[in-house]
Amino acid sequence: MVSEKLSFPNKMLAVFLEKQGGPLIVKEVPTPIPGPGQVLVKIAAAPINPSDLAGIRNAHNWIDLSKFIPGLEGSGTVVAAGKGLLPGLWLGKRVVCASHNPESGTWAQYMLTSAGTCFPLSKKVSDEQGSMSMVNPLTAISFFEIAKQCNHKAIINNASASALGRMVELLGNKHNIPVINIVRSQKNADALKAQGSKFVLNSSDASFTENLGKLAGELKATVLFDSVCDEKLPAMIEVLPPKSEVIIYGNLTAAEHIMVNPRNLIDNNIKISGFYLGSRSQENGIVKNMKNLLEVRKLMSTDMKINIQGRFPLAKAQEAVDTYLNNMSAGKVLLIPNGI
Amino acid sequence: MVSEKLSFPNKMLAVFLEKQGGPLIVKEVPTPIPGPGQVLVKIAAAPINPSDLAGIRNAHNWIDLSKFIPGLEGSGTVVAAGKGLLPGLWLGKRVVCASHNPESGTWAQYMLTSAGTCFPLSKKVSDEQGSMSMVNPLTAISFFEIAKQCNHKAIINNASASALGRMVELLGNKHNIPVINIVRSQKNADALKAQGSKFVLNSSDASFTENLGKLAGELKATVLFDSVCDEKLPAMIEVLPPKSEVIIYGNLTAAEHIMVNPRNLIDNNIKISGFYLGSRSQENGIVKNMKNLLEVRKLMSTDMKINIQGRFPLAKAQEAVDTYLNNMSAGKVLLIPNGI
Repeated sequence: MVSEKLSFPNKMLAVFLEKQGGPLIVKEVPTPIPGPGQVLVKIAAAPINPSDLAGIRNAHNWIDLSKFIPGLEGSGTVVAAGKGLLPGLWLGKRVVCASHNPESGTWAQYMLTSAGTCFPLSKKVSDEQGSMSMVNPLTAISFFEIAKQCNHKAIINNASASALGRMVELLGNKHNIPVINIVRSQKNADALKAQGSKFVLNSSDASFTENLGKLAGELKATVLFDSVCDEKLPAMIEVLPPKSEVIIYGNLTAAEHIMVNPRNLIDNNIKISGFYLGSRSQENGIVKNMKNLLEVRKLMSTDMKINIQGRFPLAKAQEAVDTYLNNMSAGKVLLIPNGI
Repeated sequence: MVSEKLSFPNKMLAVFLEKQGGPLIVKEVPTPIPGPGQVLVKIAAAPINPSDLAGIRNAHNWIDLSKFIPGLEGSGTVVAAGKGLLPGLWLGKRVVCASHNPESGTWAQYMLTSAGTCFPLSKKVSDEQGSMSMVNPLTAISFFEIAKQCNHKAIINNASASALGRMVELLGNKHNIPVINIVRSQKNADALKAQGSKFVLNSSDASFTENLGKLAGELKATVLFDSVCDEKLPAMIEVLPPKSEVIIYGNLTAAEHIMVNPRNLIDNNIKISGFYLGSRSQENGIVKNMKNLLEVRKLMSTDMKINIQGRFPLAKAQEAVDTYLNNMSAGKVLLIPNGI
């Protein structure tokens, strides 16, 4: 079935779930062979994203756990190509790649994926930085899809000092949708303003919620994206304009719950929901996802430098996840499947 | 402008808000005169509904408070009719009526409203029972509109032993959408089953949430309507099928907050929102509301006997509201504007 290939071994190591809820283990399995339109990528680096953790928690809902290989994004070299123009073009190239199937994730020595979910990595970008260049942009793109679908005139983003936050600001400019950036320190607020962000609020200010309510009202910012879930969230929700949406896409504080005022839901017509990139991609379908990947590719030229707190081999995947969970704001944790 | 009329005074008493947040006071104002398509109803009885309380809390968002007369529904006699077929038909009749404008509510001796929002009251129904026959049916009808719009195959309703709960069960049968009825005691569970409800769960049972999750999964009941907001709600939300909606339409326990697990929002794609009949009616527009009122009229033949815990004159409107708030499950509180 393979139209062209470089050399690769018959067997490979990959991360699996021993049982629902973990722990993560490593098993040796046959290296998959690309079919038409597919490529096999030798993975150089793969990050642990919050969306991977959500995927691990929920894998039992949509796949036989014995077949599930986690890892949504990564970077590497295409070592085999199935039939088709695109696979042939990528052969031998360094690429950014995304998993297109829960049976083949990036937390493995090799990943089989659709050539359409890969694109070449510029020489200027390292394997490590490149491995983190898919999920954040796709998430940011989704935010603006949601904003346009629901006619939100401006958006509010929490934890805006992050790489994702910078991406959201960038897309806000592109789509002409103002972004209210929330950060947790004056230092970060100053840094964002110096980078040209027009609307920045520091959640440590005494007048923060008041300022947020005022600014959100003025800009008609009727959607709040939150990945923090800290104790300030309830007060933030209460000052949103009527008919606002709150979209929880992460839980950096590992909060057991957020407190929602039922009166506020009823009186102000507030909606609260969750966002998980994996589900959204499934709902989008292939055409929409391809369109978004093309947009990601354009964004890739953006200069990003994401902080990395640790690098682990596949055999220490569980330790890698624990390290990340222990302090998610210290930086990304990478798996290096083919040797550090 | 009045085409026909019975006698009525030039001035009337009506309830107003002294300032935002209350208290409620009574003022004497000119009795309004019906224009084309309108009628003037001499109010016999008007209940205090949770939706009235939400309206009072939020009136400042959509009206000059000095003009706001609360009261969404009531019963009475049409004493003056503007031009048009319908107004003429209703003149002299006992009717059920709904407010069509925040400047003219049922908490007054006379209410000006659109003839289209009135319909004749059967001799078999008392003024008091009739006064409560609009908001509950419209709420129940809205539930099924939502269920159909969002393709929910079955619905879950909390506090199902109430008059509204019985209405929801009735409409569920009509629309062929199964209703999971939740009640708080075995006595109520037995009563509902005796009345023919197929799916009844007692939230006091030790295995309640487990049973709820199982039944909701089997029936694909992906929307929960809750007006209780008690400590069981978080566990109930956690067992709902993926992509479920939780719609809070009341807060019988006067909870300050409900606790929502952010992980559940993200992983299971759960949405939480509020429902307020007033906002929904505004969004519906006239044609939809008329259609719904016709449906209400059909439902009116349903035998209902709603418990009444107290009757107050307009001058004691604030005391009436306080009495209701003090124990919402003891029964409805009525205002009797033209003398008890």
